[in-house]
Amino acid sequence: MTTNADNTADPVKPAAAAEPVRIALLGCGTVGAEVVRLLDEQADDLAARIGAPLELAGIAVRRPDRDRGPLPVPRELFTADAAGLIKRDDVDIVVEVVGGLEPARGWLVHALQSGKSVVTANKALLAEDTATLAAAAADGDADLYYEAAVAGAIPLLRPLRESLHGDRITRITGIVNGTTNYILSKMDSTGAGFGEALDEATELGYAEADPTADVEGFDAAAKAAILASLGFHTRVTAADVYRVGITEVTAADVASAQEMGCVVKLLCIAELRRDPDGSESVSARVHPAMIPRSHPLASVGDAYNAVFVEAQAAGRLMFYGAGAGGAPTASAVLGDVVAVARNRRLGRSAVADSAYANLRVRPMGEVATRYHISLDVADRAGVLAQVAALFAEHGVSIQTVRQEGRGTGGEALLVIVTHRAPDAALRSTVDALAELDIVRQVASVMRVEGE
Amino acid sequence: MTTNADNTADPVKPAAAAEPVRIALLGCGTVGAEVVRLLDEQADDLAARIGAPLELAGIAVRRPDRDRGPLPVPRELFTADAAGLIKRDDVDIVVEVVGGLEPARGWLVHALQSGKSVVTANKALLAEDTATLAAAAADGDADLYYEAAVAGAIPLLRPLRESLHGDRITRITGIVNGTTNYILSKMDSTGAGFGEALDEATELGYAEADPTADVEGFDAAAKAAILASLGFHTRVTAADVYRVGITEVTAADVASAQEMGCVVKLLCIAELRRDPDGSESVSARVHPAMIPRSHPLASVGDAYNAVFVEAQAAGRLMFYGAGAGGAPTASAVLGDVVAVARNRRLGRSAVADSAYANLRVRPMGEVATRYHISLDVADRAGVLAQVAALFAEHGVSIQTVRQEGRGTGGEALLVIVTHRAPDAALRSTVDALAELDIVRQVASVMRVEGE
Repeated sequence: MTTNADNTADPVKPAAAAEPVRIALLGCGTVGAEVVRLLDEQADDLAARIGAPLELAGIAVRRPDRDRGPLPVPRELFTADAAGLIKRDDVDIVVEVVGGLEPARGWLVHALQSGKSVVTANKALLAEDTATLAAAAADGDADLYYEAAVAGAIPLLRPLRESLHGDRITRITGIVNGTTNYILSKMDSTGAGFGEALDEATELGYAEADPTADVEGFDAAAKAAILASLGFHTRVTAADVYRVGITEVTAADVASAQEMGCVVKLLCIAELRRDPDGSESVSARVHPAMIPRSHPLASVGDAYNAVFVEAQAAGRLMFYGAGAGGAPTASAVLGDVVAVARNRRLGRSAVADSAYANLRVRPMGEVATRYHISLDVADRAGVLAQVAALFAEHGVSIQTVRQEGRGTGGEALLVIVTHRAPDAALRSTVDALAELDIVRQVASVMRVEGE
Repeated sequence: MTTNADNTADPVKPAAAAEPVRIALLGCGTVGAEVVRLLDEQADDLAARIGAPLELAGIAVRRPDRDRGPLPVPRELFTADAAGLIKRDDVDIVVEVVGGLEPARGWLVHALQSGKSVVTANKALLAEDTATLAAAAADGDADLYYEAAVAGAIPLLRPLRESLHGDRITRITGIVNGTTNYILSKMDSTGAGFGEALDEATELGYAEADPTADVEGFDAAAKAAILASLGFHTRVTAADVYRVGITEVTAADVASAQEMGCVVKLLCIAELRRDPDGSESVSARVHPAMIPRSHPLASVGDAYNAVFVEAQAAGRLMFYGAGAGGAPTASAVLGDVVAVARNRRLGRSAVADSAYANLRVRPMGEVATRYHISLDVADRAGVLAQVAALFAEHGVSIQTVRQEGRGTGGEALLVIVTHRAPDAALRSTVDALAELDIVRQVASVMRVEGE
């Protein structure tokens, strides 16, 4: 590749001789090691894009002496003293791929306040406390970038926070956790139960030894908070996100979905609602849901991620790609590193997120959704009438109902799909159904999305 | 919506009282009118995101007195003097939605040189001469943004020029023209021929009265040049792009594709190739191709656009959405307007594109591709051997061959799909086939992509 810049249009000229931009890397696990590898392998291209070479000033890890295989960096770069590394005068950019709330928050706040740009993939911290980080960035006039925190390599946050700034986003629906998508895809294609599919995911490295953060939806909820904040120019934290994981999803649920022409996905959904009085509010939630197979998200299989965005003028958009893994996440981290390094060379920080709208976060009970409900009922006349009356009492309108005799035991299966109604009304309908004499068991309840 | 800024983290505070950022709009057709409408309708949100209100300084059109329906702007804003409007001291941003090379180039060069930021959707001009515009932007220290020029509302250029800057893009494959995608989708679903499908597209407003730019691939070729330039950090112009339109695609081609489990799409393909000696080159092309129905691009129907990006670390990414239309294009224009307005408020211009790599553009003959060839041949022994020998002579390896007797006339149909080979070798193979005595007719030839 020729890198001689005869291109007068480009103010950022490749200059291997220019003062290097120096990086402190915090953490050197799967993603960190890949960042180190790419910094070495793509050094010439990165220097040309920035106008100055990138250099690793140091790598902070818990055990500096551990053998890390053939990483292309000298051993002396490793240190256990992250705080000391951040403070060094020769560090321009801090890249954090450690994760967790503390000590990461303290490190990043300190770095930003002292004018160092930060690139982080720490979704838990961002979902808990972007406000503190953003305030520190403003204090230090420094950049805070975090493309890698949501949906790995998919360029998503920059489009949300920049490209769609002239539009009004109304809804973001995403498959943002690869582990659960792998498990649900397996259950769909093989008929396996949750436990069996989880075991396979663990064996293949798609699930961690402790899969709680993934299967209980904590990971997706953190991402939902970040997406809702960026999409609606407001602050939503993980605590604001309604969350149900996939551990209770059964093979029977998946089969029911198939009968309806649907597939079960763990969705993260962020919505903006404008009430008749003009006031606006947002909601953010993560839960398994049935979506029609014709929906663009339905064909997102295995560990892939995709985010479907609806905006007033732009219409329906979708972003698709690898949501996790060392290389894809490192790609997102390095994209941010190039951006902040270019900003530094030009002596400035980027425009911060706009979070001007302090929107109320609606509790789940107020959110409009639809339910798919399977009931084991007594197989006798008048059952449907009684069930239908109960729905009417709760103000919930039924879209379809299917009744199947189950043969011998005098039982039948009643499968009901509702129209949209507030979640609280739907839940109290289900509670009341369970109390009915004629209902032997509420066999399955799941939300339906993506009309 | 509350817009009081108690958010100390955000340096850009809503301030309806701040000095407005003033826009000169050049052109007021479908897209321009929608820009005017959205500027009015979303005024409060836009002001909050920028920290200052946006204001229209003037609208340059050919016929200022024409009735434009209920546009929310006073008549005095319209003028026929575009050059005069651009020169005015109270204009900060020039938005150009006129299209075409001249006089747009002169206007934009002048605006940029005098320090005014430009937002344009002019793909023809960008594909011809981004270099001149970029040089003018550097001269005037002004912003040049053009998200709306490719794939309408899909946030694509910013991800390519920023998010993936830390990665190496190797291939971009796109469906970037809605008119041709509508026509080919119709041909696929109904079995119609090109003419019939074009008529329907024209009737429904998907094709213009003169559809040449779309159906001959000129529009897609301009976009291919822009995508290749951004993706590979080099300059590729429309003249560098190999181009074949869809006017020769027949119902028989579409049926052949279906038999192979494929669908015919007009693809724009930009590729980076690294030769064994380490030198790199790019290619850019637009032509109809058969792609497997399992490929993510195959399900992009109607007038939708999608761009599939392959990068070394990030893997496979796809961006999907509305590629044209007033509102989606206006959404992309306004996203850029917000970005450049924020830059102006902070007294700076954005980082320019990096085009440091002066890569050689490979001619089509050197590009590796695959062919699907249907031959009407004499139905007698030895035909296949003779055909196969001819492929071997040209160094082209056959992947599959299917022979069908055609009944009465002593003819057979031979359907051949090749392995990858240089396009020149494939073309000369086809020429030589046409000369063979046993070949009555080369019934159809089409490239196959997306393995």
